[in-house]
Amino acid sequence: MRVLGVDPGLTRCGLGVVDGGTGRTVRCVAVGVARTPVDADLANRLLALADEVESWLDLHQPEVVAIERVFSQHNVRTAMGTAQAGGVVALLAARRGLPVAFHTPSEVKAAVTGSGKADKAQVTTMVTKLLGLREAPRPADAADALALGICHLWRAPLISRLAQAEARAAELARNHRARLAQAANNKGVAR
Amino acid sequence: MRVLGVDPGLTRCGLGVVDGGTGRTVRCVAVGVARTPVDADLANRLLALADEVESWLDLHQPEVVAIERVFSQHNVRTAMGTAQAGGVVALLAARRGLPVAFHTPSEVKAAVTGSGKADKAQVTTMVTKLLGLREAPRPADAADALALGICHLWRAPLISRLAQAEARAAELARNHRARLAQAANNKGVAR
Repeated sequence: MRVLGVDPGLTRCGLGVVDGGTGRTVRCVAVGVARTPVDADLANRLLALADEVESWLDLHQPEVVAIERVFSQHNVRTAMGTAQAGGVVALLAARRGLPVAFHTPSEVKAAVTGSGKADKAQVTTMVTKLLGLREAPRPADAADALALGICHLWRAPLISRLAQAEARAAELARNHRARLAQAANNKGVAR
Repeated sequence: MRVLGVDPGLTRCGLGVVDGGTGRTVRCVAVGVARTPVDADLANRLLALADEVESWLDLHQPEVVAIERVFSQHNVRTAMGTAQAGGVVALLAARRGLPVAFHTPSEVKAAVTGSGKADKAQVTTMVTKLLGLREAPRPADAADALALGICHLWRAPLISRLAQAEARAAELARNHRARLAQAANNKGVAR
């Protein structure tokens, strides 16, 4: 499976394409950063970002897009820009019929370093190691995008097994309720 | 000038088209709310919203899109959804070459009620009055979208005059610096 990992942002948006192989093997296909001019207005920054992301989707043809889920940041203005950028990327993927997954920063950190509280340097070190890269991807946003891709490849099977288990549990509960209703009905008839 | 006002949101996105006439006259062209299913995943909600907004842009052909600027909300999750929806609308407008303006909730309230702290009921009352509507637009998101359109029509001339004044001031400052440099140069030559 090929994943496009996206660390959304207006000033720097990390983009990383990762292929998953058998077991936990992962391979880096492409990594980079989309930048948009700080002095441009918001709509034009989103437009420039969208054009760049479209060309990555065209070129690398990922099967799924994994985006970092933003909860909050110290700087509300930055957080809003990040959310707007993430929304635009999700739209572009959905328009191509690609599934979109969101992972929180701590899920991503935990996936690649084993700790949800790892710092940026640790994430970069592990990404470099896991993908067998000769040098560390720079800037940190690029490394984060690759970490998102890896996180998705490793979490996706778990998420789908969990969804299956939940669907199965819901079905069993429905059957159980139906049998109880049937039994109550029969009792009524017997009376 | 025709404005599409957008009060962004995933559950309810207010949409209002307002025409500006001479002076401060304003006319309601269309008003409504785009809703997306709460149980759908985020990317598909953004996709559904985008489809609805595209059809409004096709149908009403606004010359500018005015979007409410989100700063923060009590519920961070809601604020992020709102920002993502706003980002998507801004992208769609920019892709059509339409200018996009953002106005804060207090700018919108101040424009239509005279107070930046007016409540929702007051905004709805004034929007109904200003547009000469027979009944108040419902829900509040629809009224807010119309208020955004009115706010933009009334603020746009001020914003453009301000931009012109700033450009003129910057030009004067440049000329002044150039004259100072010239004078210093001449002095150097004279020595």
